[in-house]
Amino acid sequence: MSNAAQGLEEHRTLVEEWLRDCFRERESRGDLYDAMYYSLLAGGKRIRPVLLLECCRLCGGEPAEALPFAGAIEMIHTYSLIHDDLPCMDDDDLRRGRPTNHKVYGEATAVLAGDALLTAAFEFMLDPSVKLPPERVLEAAGILARAAGGRGMVGGQILDMAGEGHSLGLHEVEELQRLKTGALIAAAAEMGCVLAGGSQEQRHSVRRYAECVGLAFQIQDDILDVVGDTETLGKPVGSDAKSEKTTFVTLKGLETCRELVQKLTNEAVDALTCFGLEGEGLCWLATSLASREK
Amino acid sequence: MSNAAQGLEEHRTLVEEWLRDCFRERESRGDLYDAMYYSLLAGGKRIRPVLLLECCRLCGGEPAEALPFAGAIEMIHTYSLIHDDLPCMDDDDLRRGRPTNHKVYGEATAVLAGDALLTAAFEFMLDPSVKLPPERVLEAAGILARAAGGRGMVGGQILDMAGEGHSLGLHEVEELQRLKTGALIAAAAEMGCVLAGGSQEQRHSVRRYAECVGLAFQIQDDILDVVGDTETLGKPVGSDAKSEKTTFVTLKGLETCRELVQKLTNEAVDALTCFGLEGEGLCWLATSLASREK
Repeated sequence: MSNAAQGLEEHRTLVEEWLRDCFRERESRGDLYDAMYYSLLAGGKRIRPVLLLECCRLCGGEPAEALPFAGAIEMIHTYSLIHDDLPCMDDDDLRRGRPTNHKVYGEATAVLAGDALLTAAFEFMLDPSVKLPPERVLEAAGILARAAGGRGMVGGQILDMAGEGHSLGLHEVEELQRLKTGALIAAAAEMGCVLAGGSQEQRHSVRRYAECVGLAFQIQDDILDVVGDTETLGKPVGSDAKSEKTTFVTLKGLETCRELVQKLTNEAVDALTCFGLEGEGLCWLATSLASREK
Repeated sequence: MSNAAQGLEEHRTLVEEWLRDCFRERESRGDLYDAMYYSLLAGGKRIRPVLLLECCRLCGGEPAEALPFAGAIEMIHTYSLIHDDLPCMDDDDLRRGRPTNHKVYGEATAVLAGDALLTAAFEFMLDPSVKLPPERVLEAAGILARAAGGRGMVGGQILDMAGEGHSLGLHEVEELQRLKTGALIAAAAEMGCVLAGGSQEQRHSVRRYAECVGLAFQIQDDILDVVGDTETLGKPVGSDAKSEKTTFVTLKGLETCRELVQKLTNEAVDALTCFGLEGEGLCWLATSLASREK
């Protein structure tokens, strides 16, 4: 493993351990925490928290101090998947190769597990045990709140639902994806920089990087929904076609999409020049996401 | 109207105006904001935000500065009602005399409107436009996060669901209600004091007051579910019996419950002695809640 990859792998290990223990000391509440842990520890790629920690390190901060924020963004990502899979939403039975949350715990508990994860994200960021300067904590938590709500992820989900069965234009699909997946990825990068007390130039650079990576990530997702296989992905392929969604692939075709992913990945790497060699971890991340098969 | 009542009415007007305008400048996202406004502006009693503003005033703060926090707690209360009414939860068709959110906007939008309201609560509290000292903002937002999550309201909802069809003991019903409704009411009082920069004694007093009022409020709710009428309440009576819930009334009987409400209200008023005559607004609130018919 390269040094660049190893640094990120260390972040990932930190995040996994933090997530594994985060609710350990809480008093049991029915099967609420079982349901929350079920989805939280389902072995996601941890892209958002790893990106947050690496941007924190890159901007001169201590990643360990940013862990509650890294965990928080993964909680918000996880809650959105639980609610997205509900019968009244995408009605999915399988997620990451396992039955979806409501299939195991029932719909009511799945709704509440999602609600509790979303709330827990803020509990951890705003906990008195966080010793970073209050101004940085406030700013980082505020960035996440804005990226997760109606002006970000949830807004994107509404547009996504509204678009099913309709044919959308490229601009609409871009806007939808910028909100639905892009906002949280950009927030991860920006939060890492803010928590580290980074400069405006650094903040601008990591945000630009994350915007390119986020869009490339979504286009690659659309590609994999057409050419991937169910076993590798851990979820059914062809789900976009099934729900008649307009995707980058339906708009642009596979070949152009592959070129777009490459172009955006190059732009992401270019955005990191101000960090010199220190940016190689994020370069590696962008490249590996562009060539992922799941 | 007494002076005491008038002060609270002024808070309520401030809250209504703030809520009415809070999403006005946002870009439209399908019917997301319509659905959010539908439930947010459905004419609730606004007990939590009014309590927050009055505790802020009582502890030496400026209520207008605490408005985003008052609005935030009402958003969290509102989102919990939307999710609670869903078919997979309580499956209610009527709330405050109107069709429930999912009856009007569909289940998927209702889930997302709830998610967006919960998130918006934090967006507003953590907004850069809030000019209160960062330490107070952090502490107040943290209190609300803890009261709303698995250790508070959502934890109470899980226990509530788990208890349906089972017979619970008094201790269990008290614990459930302390979490499900008590936590948010106590948080409102504490947040108001924290935002004002109040003393530990003041914080202890308003919290004690709110704990008594919160429990009295729930017992009165249980009483009204038996003796109230559907038209006044704006929701069906007898819903607890229908879902075989153990309530304070099934455990203690109507007469004892009425005495309990009175006793708790007296205790709430007693907790305010350190505020002298200034506490008359909160005394009036406790008394009027104890005699409410809806």
